[in-house]
Amino acid sequence: MQEYIHKVQYYETDRMGIAHHSNYIRWMEEARVAFLERIGWSFARLEESGLVSPVTEVSCKYKTPCTFADVITIKIYIESLGAVRARFRYIMKKGDATVCECSSEHCFLDKQGKIVNLSKTCPEFFSELQKHTND
Amino acid sequence: MQEYIHKVQYYETDRMGIAHHSNYIRWMEEARVAFLERIGWSFARLEESGLVSPVTEVSCKYKTPCTFADVITIKIYIESLGAVRARFRYIMKKGDATVCECSSEHCFLDKQGKIVNLSKTCPEFFSELQKHTND
Amino acid sequence: MQEYIHKVQYYETDRMGIAHHSNYIRWMEEARVAFLERIGWSFARLEESGLVSPVTEVSCKYKTPCTFADVITIKIYIESLGAVRARFRYIMKKGDATVCECSSEHCFLDKQGKIVNLSKTCPEFFSELQKHTND
Amino acid sequence: MQEYIHKVQYYETDRMGIAHHSNYIRWMEEARVAFLERIGWSFARLEESGLVSPVTEVSCKYKTPCTFADVITIKIYIESLGAVRARFRYIMKKGDATVCECSSEHCFLDKQGKIVNLSKTCPEFFSELQKHTND
Repeated sequence: MQEYIHKVQYYETDRMGIAHHSNYIRWMEEARVAFLERIGWSFARLEESGLVSPVTEVSCKYKTPCTFADVITIKIYIESLGAVRARFRYIMKKGDATVCECSSEHCFLDKQGKIVNLSKTCPEFFSELQKHTND
Repeated sequence: MQEYIHKVQYYETDRMGIAHHSNYIRWMEEARVAFLERIGWSFARLEESGLVSPVTEVSCKYKTPCTFADVITIKIYIESLGAVRARFRYIMKKGDATVCECSSEHCFLDKQGKIVNLSKTCPEFFSELQKHTND
Repeated sequence: MQEYIHKVQYYETDRMGIAHHSNYIRWMEEARVAFLERIGWSFARLEESGLVSPVTEVSCKYKTPCTFADVITIKIYIESLGAVRARFRYIMKKGDATVCECSSEHCFLDKQGKIVNLSKTCPEFFSELQKHTND
Repeated sequence: MQEYIHKVQYYETDRMGIAHHSNYIRWMEEARVAFLERIGWSFARLEESGLVSPVTEVSCKYKTPCTFADVITIKIYIESLGAVRARFRYIMKKGDATVCECSSEHCFLDKQGKIVNLSKTCPEFFSELQKHTND
């Protein structure tokens, strides 16, 4: 499991005085990008490998609101990994309080937009993801 | 069931050339706001009634990407309504193609942030929502 | 001069209770896109013509705040047009109150990112813009 | 002069493949918030002092585009400070290349939204800003 820090920006708050719920989906992406970078698979390297990995599903359960200047710690890990699909889990905390619990699902496409079997098309990336599944 | 139209803006697209997946969560809000307005319960009226209705859960399954200038039709309805919780469903289409299927869950709070039983605190709003459940 | 309507969304408000000032830059784009579409030069047609028109400058003077559910009328016109540069002006109003006064400057690039002389590269688009300058 | 670092996020890019121009306005805010925090005047302290400081003007000249994963260094300083108005300047760089040059102007309001003379209402904050003007 890895950790990523997001500090809530003023422009992310809404009229209720809290971070707008749509921003959490963006922080998930921030954490995922950092996760992949740390295991050696930056988006730049993925692109060079001819891979795109769009989001196919996203969910988020909001527990405690957060607001401007709050420091959010995002724990991220791979919950499951199949040949054509990966699922990430995220737990966001502000101190001891759980801000939200989220998940995202992704498939893998080649540059033509065709779904690929990651274990065959890019076994190096696949085995790296495997190493970090439920880690 | 009601329909809401969103035209995809240039600033909503990302480097992949498609609408960034976080924006769908915002379009859900647009559709929900319009829905409540049409049944006579604008946010202004909710606020006057001392009610806040934060999002407690959100999920979205992405089916077909959409991009700049696409016209998205969002069908929205209340899937379930309890005394302290309501669940909305959304189906977004671009022509015949399903763009995504989403849901959101909401609770009801008074101005002090305390969860309220909507059927007691604001029976008029509750019965209006009931009329439109699975409609 | 043309008019474009933007209804302020909940997710565009911030903790001060008003529309966050960064959103006005996005509404300028919305108005510009609609303007170009109405004079027959949608972004799709521009792209087919091999043209890109990035923003080189933007400015905005904020006069009266606006907030959720406000209906903003955006007047837009071309203030000046040169061979390699165009400048748009925007006046946003909420009823009689001026919300802000803005401008944006744009150049024209070919697909390789080289600045082009619009009057030579795409005279048809250039003369259409000319017709609407200070209009 | 102080420096603030912003790493461009994927969701900040647009269909042209670069960071959407509206985001720079948000990064200016990030830099300004960090600047004020470092000189001892966090937004929290400003709020406690009963002060709000809305943006009255913003401008940005775009020089070199930037994109996902780029690390942007933002230099920020106070260009001018009057009793009722302050102007910030920003220079954003990616390595040696200037990404953009921006400015923002702010006034000071009390909680009732009335413009205040900062040098009288909050002389401590005023003199701290003075120390950092053209610094």
